Amino acid sequence: MGWIDACQALTADAIDEGDLLPSIDPPAFARFVIAAFTGVRTVSQVLADCGDLERRVDEMWVLLLPGIMPAVRHQDIARIRAARATAVVVGEQTPA
Amino acid sequence: MGWIDACQALTADAIDEGDLLPSIDPPAFARFVIAAFTGVRTVSQVLADCGDLERRVDEMWVLLLPGIMPAVRHQDIARIRAARATAVVVGEQTPA
Repeated sequence: MGWIDACQALTADAIDEGDLLPSIDPPAFARFVIAAFTGVRTVSQVLADCGDLERRVDEMWVLLLPGIMPAVRHQDIARIRAARATAVVVGEQTPA
Repeated sequence: MGWIDACQALTADAIDEGDLLPSIDPPAFARFVIAAFTGVRTVSQVLADCGDLERRVDEMWVLLLPGIMPAVRHQDIARIRAARATAVVVGEQTPA
């Protein structure tokens, strides 16, 4: 399960850097995030042919982030959401 | 989508009763919870033939509840988790 392993390593790094709460268990969190995304994608495919996938993933993070980030980092949530949207746009363009 | 509609109605009730944060959008939350459970069940089926499903659903709530419940209700999280485990046992027995 490559995605879960990769997410687990990133989760451990994020805890070390104070971006995620130290109470989070990296294996459990990684398995849940990959599972939740899998489900969000499935429901988006069934209900909207994936046309609302980006919005549904954003809604997932809006619900998850406040419970997994230290309170002192909550001010960054709006910036993180904006960065995700920007990353998608940049990824669709050819670098100059 | 009967499950999403039912979850949406319960979410609205829970917000009215102060069990969930008023900032939560019932349609978005309901769609995410049903999608996330769908994904958790899928991954549990693939990796463990659903043998760890109850534990994985508990891990889902441990990650979700702190971000969706008002801080004054966080003291109830342990009780809620215990009630889920008890409900499963009761549901398997015939009432006296």
